[in-house]
Amino acid sequence: MNWRLILSYDGSRYNGWQKQGNTENTIQGKLEQVLSRLMEQSIEVQGAGRTDAGVHALGQVASVRLPGKWDPRQLQEKLNEYLPEDIAVLEAAPAEDRFHARLSARGKTYRYEIRIGTVPDVFRRKYQWQLADQPDLEKMRAAAAQLIGTRDFRSFCGNRQFKKSTERTLESIDIQQNGADLTITFRGDGFLPYMVRILTGTLVEVGLGKIPAASIPEILAAKDRMAAGPTAPAKGLTLVEVRY
Amino acid sequence: MNWRLILSYDGSRYNGWQKQGNTENTIQGKLEQVLSRLMEQSIEVQGAGRTDAGVHALGQVASVRLPGKWDPRQLQEKLNEYLPEDIAVLEAAPAEDRFHARLSARGKTYRYEIRIGTVPDVFRRKYQWQLADQPDLEKMRAAAAQLIGTRDFRSFCGNRQFKKSTERTLESIDIQQNGADLTITFRGDGFLPYMVRILTGTLVEVGLGKIPAASIPEILAAKDRMAAGPTAPAKGLTLVEVRY
Repeated sequence: MNWRLILSYDGSRYNGWQKQGNTENTIQGKLEQVLSRLMEQSIEVQGAGRTDAGVHALGQVASVRLPGKWDPRQLQEKLNEYLPEDIAVLEAAPAEDRFHARLSARGKTYRYEIRIGTVPDVFRRKYQWQLADQPDLEKMRAAAAQLIGTRDFRSFCGNRQFKKSTERTLESIDIQQNGADLTITFRGDGFLPYMVRILTGTLVEVGLGKIPAASIPEILAAKDRMAAGPTAPAKGLTLVEVRY
Repeated sequence: MNWRLILSYDGSRYNGWQKQGNTENTIQGKLEQVLSRLMEQSIEVQGAGRTDAGVHALGQVASVRLPGKWDPRQLQEKLNEYLPEDIAVLEAAPAEDRFHARLSARGKTYRYEIRIGTVPDVFRRKYQWQLADQPDLEKMRAAAAQLIGTRDFRSFCGNRQFKKSTERTLESIDIQQNGADLTITFRGDGFLPYMVRILTGTLVEVGLGKIPAASIPEILAAKDRMAAGPTAPAKGLTLVEVRY
């Protein structure tokens, strides 16, 4: 039977979601290990988004075909019992036969968290990028507005060997600050490798006055990674939700 | 000059606040180390509450006499620069000469966080006690109501050698659940060693039906640690605030 799993994880100590060659210690690897042991056969899962090393998830989605009959609640409890404490299964539900976590996905939401100033939030320190100076939110919002829409985001793609289309639709970028906590929420139909972190790095440079907000169209038009700002650190990024 | 520092820390990897003999790796020890290096002389600080190993703080208070003149903002920044990333100075302010973090304290607030069920919150897992079964909140509140007031809390004191008075005033115990997150907030004029954790362990036993709520007066009257419930794990406890 085909299943849909919703997962949350603290990505701090993992090499990202995806199994890659002999790089062990991935979330996918841990999940497949536990599922394979439970099912007494080799199990492969499909994840909706390949979160990078150090990136977190509140609502990653995976699809997986499992032999036999399982009570959803019992399956979830077994998985949570055997998975490491930094990976949690929030939901396990039977899915339609043609459901595929990545191919069926219609959109995703990512959140990037920044802590402004020199005083860390010790309880969120592993999930926030600490930034000494306060960026100008209005400048950031002006730049963000020019990124919205269906565009070629090649300048914001971290993988230079990327062969497929780099056109994506960015539905919204919401920038909010609450005290020292600055949160940028990105909603789109899909994201290129490192795209959210390069968008964040670029928006922050705009906020700090290092890149003019008005230069966003040029950066997009360049179709060159070198035109955009730096890649923000992995630890501030969380995959919030996958939409189907 | 006399100073008041407000500190936040993730206590997970420390042997508590207080320096004790040759037990290294305490918050007080780390703070004194950084201050002594900064002041180029041996500095001792006084903390308001001796949080145990593994207990956290959102608003621990310390008093300390420092030589020379310091700009409060600059002192705070220097401390945050040199302290480990799991200890933060939220405020550094000049204090009246007679101010003493522990002796001047008039009250404290502690928070105990419990996660109900088998699905952990991976981002809060180091700050929550995971409890498989849902306790009955009304039973817990009925028990809590009988603990409020000025009483001899000897049955809730974890140190059997405790020589001083075990009378304390518990001003309030607030029990709230939001989804799977159960929070118990304790406000009082002062707390005995392990008192909040033993109160929590006892309230949870009441909630799970293992101890009747009506037996609280007997437990108090016994003046015997064995009469109360177990000590809840350190990691769920946070010193929220010290009042002066």
